[in-house]
Amino acid sequence: MKKVYYQGDKGCFSEIAAYKFFDSSIKGVGVATFEDVFKTVKNKKSTYGIIPIENTLAGSIHQNYDSLLKYDLWIVGEVKLKITFNLLAQTKVSLKSINEIWSHPVALNQCKEFLARHPKYNIVSVYDTAGAAKILKKERRYDVGILAGPQVAKLYGLRTLKKEIENNPQNFTRFLILSCKKKIYSGRHVKTSLAFGVKNAPGILFKCLSVFALRNVDLVKLESRPIIGKPWEYLFYIDLKGSFEDENCRYAVDAFSEVVAYLKFLGSYELKWC
Amino acid sequence: MKKVYYQGDKGCFSEIAAYKFFDSSIKGVGVATFEDVFKTVKNKKSTYGIIPIENTLAGSIHQNYDSLLKYDLWIVGEVKLKITFNLLAQTKVSLKSINEIWSHPVALNQCKEFLARHPKYNIVSVYDTAGAAKILKKERRYDVGILAGPQVAKLYGLRTLKKEIENNPQNFTRFLILSCKKKIYSGRHVKTSLAFGVKNAPGILFKCLSVFALRNVDLVKLESRPIIGKPWEYLFYIDLKGSFEDENCRYAVDAFSEVVAYLKFLGSYELKWC
Repeated sequence: MKKVYYQGDKGCFSEIAAYKFFDSSIKGVGVATFEDVFKTVKNKKSTYGIIPIENTLAGSIHQNYDSLLKYDLWIVGEVKLKITFNLLAQTKVSLKSINEIWSHPVALNQCKEFLARHPKYNIVSVYDTAGAAKILKKERRYDVGILAGPQVAKLYGLRTLKKEIENNPQNFTRFLILSCKKKIYSGRHVKTSLAFGVKNAPGILFKCLSVFALRNVDLVKLESRPIIGKPWEYLFYIDLKGSFEDENCRYAVDAFSEVVAYLKFLGSYELKWC
Repeated sequence: MKKVYYQGDKGCFSEIAAYKFFDSSIKGVGVATFEDVFKTVKNKKSTYGIIPIENTLAGSIHQNYDSLLKYDLWIVGEVKLKITFNLLAQTKVSLKSINEIWSHPVALNQCKEFLARHPKYNIVSVYDTAGAAKILKKERRYDVGILAGPQVAKLYGLRTLKKEIENNPQNFTRFLILSCKKKIYSGRHVKTSLAFGVKNAPGILFKCLSVFALRNVDLVKLESRPIIGKPWEYLFYIDLKGSFEDENCRYAVDAFSEVVAYLKFLGSYELKWC
């Protein structure tokens, strides 16, 4: 059985995303940090990892962009997940008995309008949304509510007190599947990701992007990150529609490699449920 | 006397940056959050605000990019500051008696190599580097060291136990000066910042950037942020060399306004100590 490593506890969004991508034929394994996911996939040849890379409300998870380069892994898949938060508590606990709410800081922030309407709650940050359920059960707290995905209620035997309390319903997270083995996917639902650095010259970014525009290769995302040790210089990450196996895309990437100062191919990968 | 609002306590890097920009003729006023800086400048006509926008190691402060649009203020200046951290403690306290270290999470992260070499320290996050000094004095702790800028020692009467303990010496923060009054600067050391959204079409970013490349207007930074409520669509922030008062730059921005879906002019502002 394939092992897929994710950060968090059983029932967290990363695990749900892994099952959505791979179907139920995998074994999900939770670890403490994103860095642990990268390290494990780097060291164990037959495993996969899954990491969130971007949320439509919170933005990119830059730490994971940086680790993509540091650990030199391949992106072999992408899956998008709708994120929704419910207010959960122990069974038999009513809304009135709650005076403290636990969740991950990003979840707390994405439900801040609900929290602002209920100023009586004491707010506590924990390391993971599903982890909040784990601690709640272990510590047998009957005065605490948690904010977590709907899947967490059944898994930990909790009661749903309020559904979909997030500020904005357009809340999706994009996850990447990582492997230490190179595999280039082709077909209609494929994306190619590259990281690159540019020489210091006027109009250089425009010149770089021209190789894709000339060949009608569609750029779906561009992200910049500082280069450590080189103040005010940036590394860029781009996502293109199409596969490196497509002639058009491959020619564009070849031309791209002539104009950039640094280029790293991160993968041509399958999009599921896109 | 001009008032300049910043987030943090007396002696924090934002305050140092404000004095560097305005010389000593101002009165710095510390507030609790970045949002408070924006709110105060929006409501008080004769004041300025200063916010960090980017650090060469940690990257952009996206919350402040978002607030630039939300509060509709003008950028009227930029200043860069070298960031360095010293280990400080109460006078007469020696290195041996320290068993806990307090600082802002970003400072702790930027000194993590030093902290990893001294695993005996208990690490505690606080809201501000200078704020750590304030609490240390108030609580009369003789077993605690703090990580803060060199200026904090003299200001709070602390002893410097170790100098420059940051992981990487190429550590600079770029700060922006904000005002609710529009003022367009011109001259040699001027930058222009714009925020824009693009229509959904292949090669659109390339077309947008062409207006600057054609006129040799130099793009020094490009940053993307998700558009809330529109999954997988992005807003971009760009910094150009030059002023909107320059004919060349103004023509480019005019042409730019034809190709983008949304455009906001954030300011043409003075760079000091660049």
